[in-house]
Amino acid sequence: MNSTQYPGVYPEQVEELRLRTREFIRGTVIPLEPRPGQALNLTVRRELGEAAKAAGVYAPHAPREFGGQGLALEHWSPVFQEAGYSPIGPAALNCMAPDEGNMHMLNLIGTPEQRRRYLEPLAAGRVSSCFAMTEPHPGAGSDPDALATTAVRDGHHWVITGHKRFTSGATFAGFAIVMARTPETEAGESLTPETKAHAAEASPAGATMFLVPMDTPGVRVGAPIHTMDKYLPGGHPHVHFDGVRVPENAVLGRVGLGFQHAQLRLGPARLTHCMRWLGLARRALDIALDRGNTREIFGAHISQLGLAQELIAASVIDIETSDAIIGKCALLLGADPRAGAALSSVAKVHCSEAVYRVIDRAVQLCGGDGVSDGLPLAQYLNEVRPFRIYDGATETHKWAIARRASSARRREVAAGEPFRGAARINDGGQE
Amino acid sequence: MNSTQYPGVYPEQVEELRLRTREFIRGTVIPLEPRPGQALNLTVRRELGEAAKAAGVYAPHAPREFGGQGLALEHWSPVFQEAGYSPIGPAALNCMAPDEGNMHMLNLIGTPEQRRRYLEPLAAGRVSSCFAMTEPHPGAGSDPDALATTAVRDGHHWVITGHKRFTSGATFAGFAIVMARTPETEAGESLTPETKAHAAEASPAGATMFLVPMDTPGVRVGAPIHTMDKYLPGGHPHVHFDGVRVPENAVLGRVGLGFQHAQLRLGPARLTHCMRWLGLARRALDIALDRGNTREIFGAHISQLGLAQELIAASVIDIETSDAIIGKCALLLGADPRAGAALSSVAKVHCSEAVYRVIDRAVQLCGGDGVSDGLPLAQYLNEVRPFRIYDGATETHKWAIARRASSARRREVAAGEPFRGAARINDGGQE
Amino acid sequence: MNSTQYPGVYPEQVEELRLRTREFIRGTVIPLEPRPGQALNLTVRRELGEAAKAAGVYAPHAPREFGGQGLALEHWSPVFQEAGYSPIGPAALNCMAPDEGNMHMLNLIGTPEQRRRYLEPLAAGRVSSCFAMTEPHPGAGSDPDALATTAVRDGHHWVITGHKRFTSGATFAGFAIVMARTPETEAGESLTPETKAHAAEASPAGATMFLVPMDTPGVRVGAPIHTMDKYLPGGHPHVHFDGVRVPENAVLGRVGLGFQHAQLRLGPARLTHCMRWLGLARRALDIALDRGNTREIFGAHISQLGLAQELIAASVIDIETSDAIIGKCALLLGADPRAGAALSSVAKVHCSEAVYRVIDRAVQLCGGDGVSDGLPLAQYLNEVRPFRIYDGATETHKWAIARRASSARRREVAAGEPFRGAARINDGGQE
Amino acid sequence: MNSTQYPGVYPEQVEELRLRTREFIRGTVIPLEPRPGQALNLTVRRELGEAAKAAGVYAPHAPREFGGQGLALEHWSPVFQEAGYSPIGPAALNCMAPDEGNMHMLNLIGTPEQRRRYLEPLAAGRVSSCFAMTEPHPGAGSDPDALATTAVRDGHHWVITGHKRFTSGATFAGFAIVMARTPETEAGESLTPETKAHAAEASPAGATMFLVPMDTPGVRVGAPIHTMDKYLPGGHPHVHFDGVRVPENAVLGRVGLGFQHAQLRLGPARLTHCMRWLGLARRALDIALDRGNTREIFGAHISQLGLAQELIAASVIDIETSDAIIGKCALLLGADPRAGAALSSVAKVHCSEAVYRVIDRAVQLCGGDGVSDGLPLAQYLNEVRPFRIYDGATETHKWAIARRASSARRREVAAGEPFRGAARINDGGQE
Repeated sequence: MNSTQYPGVYPEQVEELRLRTREFIRGTVIPLEPRPGQALNLTVRRELGEAAKAAGVYAPHAPREFGGQGLALEHWSPVFQEAGYSPIGPAALNCMAPDEGNMHMLNLIGTPEQRRRYLEPLAAGRVSSCFAMTEPHPGAGSDPDALATTAVRDGHHWVITGHKRFTSGATFAGFAIVMARTPETEAGESLTPETKAHAAEASPAGATMFLVPMDTPGVRVGAPIHTMDKYLPGGHPHVHFDGVRVPENAVLGRVGLGFQHAQLRLGPARLTHCMRWLGLARRALDIALDRGNTREIFGAHISQLGLAQELIAASVIDIETSDAIIGKCALLLGADPRAGAALSSVAKVHCSEAVYRVIDRAVQLCGGDGVSDGLPLAQYLNEVRPFRIYDGATETHKWAIARRASSARRREVAAGEPFRGAARINDGGQE
Repeated sequence: MNSTQYPGVYPEQVEELRLRTREFIRGTVIPLEPRPGQALNLTVRRELGEAAKAAGVYAPHAPREFGGQGLALEHWSPVFQEAGYSPIGPAALNCMAPDEGNMHMLNLIGTPEQRRRYLEPLAAGRVSSCFAMTEPHPGAGSDPDALATTAVRDGHHWVITGHKRFTSGATFAGFAIVMARTPETEAGESLTPETKAHAAEASPAGATMFLVPMDTPGVRVGAPIHTMDKYLPGGHPHVHFDGVRVPENAVLGRVGLGFQHAQLRLGPARLTHCMRWLGLARRALDIALDRGNTREIFGAHISQLGLAQELIAASVIDIETSDAIIGKCALLLGADPRAGAALSSVAKVHCSEAVYRVIDRAVQLCGGDGVSDGLPLAQYLNEVRPFRIYDGATETHKWAIARRASSARRREVAAGEPFRGAARINDGGQE
Repeated sequence: MNSTQYPGVYPEQVEELRLRTREFIRGTVIPLEPRPGQALNLTVRRELGEAAKAAGVYAPHAPREFGGQGLALEHWSPVFQEAGYSPIGPAALNCMAPDEGNMHMLNLIGTPEQRRRYLEPLAAGRVSSCFAMTEPHPGAGSDPDALATTAVRDGHHWVITGHKRFTSGATFAGFAIVMARTPETEAGESLTPETKAHAAEASPAGATMFLVPMDTPGVRVGAPIHTMDKYLPGGHPHVHFDGVRVPENAVLGRVGLGFQHAQLRLGPARLTHCMRWLGLARRALDIALDRGNTREIFGAHISQLGLAQELIAASVIDIETSDAIIGKCALLLGADPRAGAALSSVAKVHCSEAVYRVIDRAVQLCGGDGVSDGLPLAQYLNEVRPFRIYDGATETHKWAIARRASSARRREVAAGEPFRGAARINDGGQE
Repeated sequence: MNSTQYPGVYPEQVEELRLRTREFIRGTVIPLEPRPGQALNLTVRRELGEAAKAAGVYAPHAPREFGGQGLALEHWSPVFQEAGYSPIGPAALNCMAPDEGNMHMLNLIGTPEQRRRYLEPLAAGRVSSCFAMTEPHPGAGSDPDALATTAVRDGHHWVITGHKRFTSGATFAGFAIVMARTPETEAGESLTPETKAHAAEASPAGATMFLVPMDTPGVRVGAPIHTMDKYLPGGHPHVHFDGVRVPENAVLGRVGLGFQHAQLRLGPARLTHCMRWLGLARRALDIALDRGNTREIFGAHISQLGLAQELIAASVIDIETSDAIIGKCALLLGADPRAGAALSSVAKVHCSEAVYRVIDRAVQLCGGDGVSDGLPLAQYLNEVRPFRIYDGATETHKWAIARRASSARRREVAAGEPFRGAARINDGGQE
């Protein structure tokens, strides 16, 4: 039950792609995995990419015209989970962060020229990219309002100045999507009221995204940040933008709507993280089940097995509920992107915590080997630990979730729903 | 976000029925709720039933030919959640346990005559029913193998002898479905191989279900069992069957396949419990949100609000993941009933624990009023506490979930999947 | 391990009193326990009190001169836990809230005349008392600053006006200790600097406690508040003070220092709640262990037992850590009352949550009987649920704990401890 | 509150040693800590040891005659916690595992000659040691019964053959204490009945401990096991014993009583692990508090702080309850070693899980820096993760705790305590 999808829930072509992906990952990718704690060799990655193209499993999320499999967002989950069953699977299939999210956004809001120049080589795996958003304290971190990087107009150019960090993938990237503060007044004049309302609620105004080739003068990749996770080639370095000059057509989307556009990226990007990591959680559970099926756990005592069963059952429940909330959220992102983005906070918190627990329990089930590099579990634990912080920490999302729940209820009551918070007292009144 | 369904996920007629149900529950049912801790008056129940018929919301799950709304199982969840928003809603709509599950099973395996005689009045609310399965220790409890009630043939009749308890609804029931041990040899001669395999895996053989009018001589409703939950009229009494004589056509389904047939009932019945209680969890959260939106919680300290936000966010996550796993399981019960039944264990554990937590947090958010009968929350807590035990305790399901996960993985490995439990050691070998 | 104290940890006389108490509770009190959900009959309580005096176990905490056993606070825990093994044990031994806390405070700050008039009959069990502090919203609840009841001078008298609720025990009380707002200027003129600092940090100024006989004109016991807990005779009613006139010598402690004095009561009172309820948790675990030792749990499956072991082990850990933090806090309350009061928040949160979990797991281990009144566990659950709210909700205490930890650390750093929150960055700087 | 001990709880000399240790660790040791993920340089360790001797804080647990501070076990906790505030503190003070536990055992059961030859240089820091117990599967792991290493007599010598792993510290050790299977018949002839009973309950018979210099022919340190924890010099290698010949006086304690003797080591050794790691947990909380006190967490939103407060308060509670159960257990190990050893299982589970949670929350509170090596928290997390497995996994201890609780209760009931597991049924009987 734990490592396969359910029949009849997804369309047949999706199921076929899933099975093809499964076979490719298990037969071709896993044998080439690096040792725990080591990054994927870029040559191996390129070779795996070619093999994936040949196997018809490359870039499942990317449009067919750009060489992808053209899968609809609501069908990504089963395929991405298969990819994530190997920690290098998503890189091999070119559906890894941050490239995958950048492709998604370029496809949605890029101009034809931008799609041709940036999306095409990115989808084909000829270049990689990064998303330059997070800044050192007290700049943009959990709070996008604090954005300190600026872009100012200079004739038909923009000049970008700022300091980013945690810029995953920057080391080997061909281009960056850079978020920078721009004057607020340029945006929004022709927005629909709904977009305006959405923008006003969800995002601070006055930021713009720019497409910046990494070899543009003034771009400098700074010191790497050494984090617990090791599989992403190039890590999460600082990047400095010192008076970087780009032409007007480097603007991605509309001037001033950077945060609003980024929402388009964020919801799905959060969710694909969940999908990939959920695949790795399945792998960890398989390792633990295999261990449990062939040797005595916790000594030879049969009566002890129940404590292992507690761990196994809790992990199955975590995996199944994660799969379910991902599926529901993916469906909703199609039907109502705004509601979907809100629900993606719930999915992100639940899945990131659940995936971590599943791997942690697998470590526990494997005892001493679980914390050694004889098994990959300790490294998996280090890979997924940051996921509870990246893309919005659990606590940041909880704060947003609670606020949204409170205000939604406030609106309901304002719209006529009976207020239910009054306590009846025994002499007939309320207090 | 917390109290409404999502647009675009369900078909339009389902959404219409959901909204109709919502309006009926909030406008008509809630004003007639009894005080916390008191059972629903049967006259009120009957009147509400008539009103529900008039409003076109009665028996959403029952076939249209019997007066129901003819909803497919995969669409029950949003409607049942609306019904459960009031603890008496499901009774008012005649989609309450155990009648709802009995209707479902009668519809699936009853003979035309049985459907006419039992299902029709049951669906119409003219009679109620009970399901006589659980026995006092050491009889059938968590372990159906221990079934002690017997039925023996006597010419063209069967004679049933045994002692049941926790027979919910027996006090006012018109008839019972009784599980009794029968000779194994009569069953299975013409089963398909798949049904046989399923039967062999899931259920002990040699039991049969009987339809027994409660006024049959020898049937005696014994002492009630006073439990924490109070809303179900008649509680969960003992029922004695002392040589109860019923004709051959009292057999429901096939002789010897009682447990297998009961599986048909169990999966969906577990899931509808989850749906109804999830509705009540939404109510509890609404109460807490209203309280939080209008008065200071935990004193006047603004900085303290975050501790309330933790509780609120955790409850939203519990509600959304419960809704998601219910939806996924309902879909699967249609596509693959056996996989659906297995997943219903996961859904049942997750939802019963989640619903309890949501109500417990609501109590906490309402402080002293939360534990008094000035608000209904303390009683809600008592209503849902047994749900973590009824229909299989959390631990029983976890045991089954872990066993299934282990054996499924064993089969995978036997079928060729690489074994992943071996730890690499540094000098090249494995141990 | 679970139901006995450890040898050699407490002095011999304490151990002797503990064993005497244990024998009295198990041999004399438990056989007279009322049915689950029913309050202790007052006549039975009186008879048990006389028997306790004869057995030399009455009022363990009260001074010997008033008929108690004169136990030091740091030795209360083992004896109170034995008392709490029966839910009516503390009432039988006259060490129940709120009387026990009132005795403690009267003994510490009462005048000789007040001790003679109020403490003596209270310790002897001839009268009972209540503590009138909590008020309906928006008065004093979690936030004492909101105190709305006032006392104003009128010559040599005070006139008290206000509305209290959750006044546990008021129904049968002979007198109340009433907290009321008084002008701030009267207090503190001769305080030591340390007391002033303590007062300033911990408590809002300007409140005074009064000893008020319940038959004083203007005192009216209002509607009861029906809560989940049932054992306390008289429940937790509203009490109205309508221009209640009391003489100057009704002031308990000093004018204006009501909250500061109440701290003396609060720390130990919180801790004795923990002690008593921990005794009940031991009882619940014993019930579950007896069940587990004599019948199959969760069906007959031996392999399933581990899931029960998980519950049992978690409960033992909860009980032992609760016992340990109570012991540490009791010791500290003697050595440094202020640090002890702060630690009592930690003990209260940990024990109230732990005790609830222990009883909840016992319910789970006993299955259907656990939620019925065939066993007392469901009622125990209802008894202890409010304890997570009364005397400061878990969240209120957590808020205080976090604030204290943050400010204590701030002071440390201000006093020269190196600041440790700076992240080193790889090019040598810090950010 | 979080980083200091309480006044008045420990004797004055203990408090003085604690303060001296605190000053030494913070002033001298911390400035020399290696970068996260790197082991302590042995030269630095030696220098710190000399400085510790000069400061009068070296080897707090060791007898004064061997250069230690002669602290009684019940007073170790506050001092060891101060030592553990730096991950290299215990090594600097020579109170690190496995040496510290080996010293403790040598002092208790070594002959005068063994104490002179092994304990003296070990206490002085001139040699280090290891404890060779754990074996590769299916040898001795969680289950000592599976011990596969053997020792057979050969005249006046013993010949040891076997394969150990996870032999912490073996790389640099001067000698090992080796557990090997020996014939059962040699032991126990002159044991007291109580010791026999204890032995029979707790430990399999027929094992003996040997003191083996690492340069004895046939001893070979094999491949290292790379684990998540990095601070212990030399890691946890395999060690092979190929016909290692040692004289009779190499036997430590009595022939055949190896496991019983090892219990003497295990209880305190488990507890000192808890003490040391608890010190590190305090460090982690300080880091997080400093971060929280100086910058905005989770963005600038004041209302969000409560989610941080939840994490802080939970960590304070974890730290205080860990400190309390350690203190209680240390006291008990003196008063009743057998009860103390049993309680050490509870302490080990609670503290190892609590310490991990505290550090995990600190990571969360520090966001992106928390998972980078800009702060040491990610490495702390990796240091303490194995502690939930080493010295008996959480699940192994829980299994033992549950078994002991069940059998203790069984004995109580057998000795006359009323059985409390019977459910009353309403018609007067019991079932």
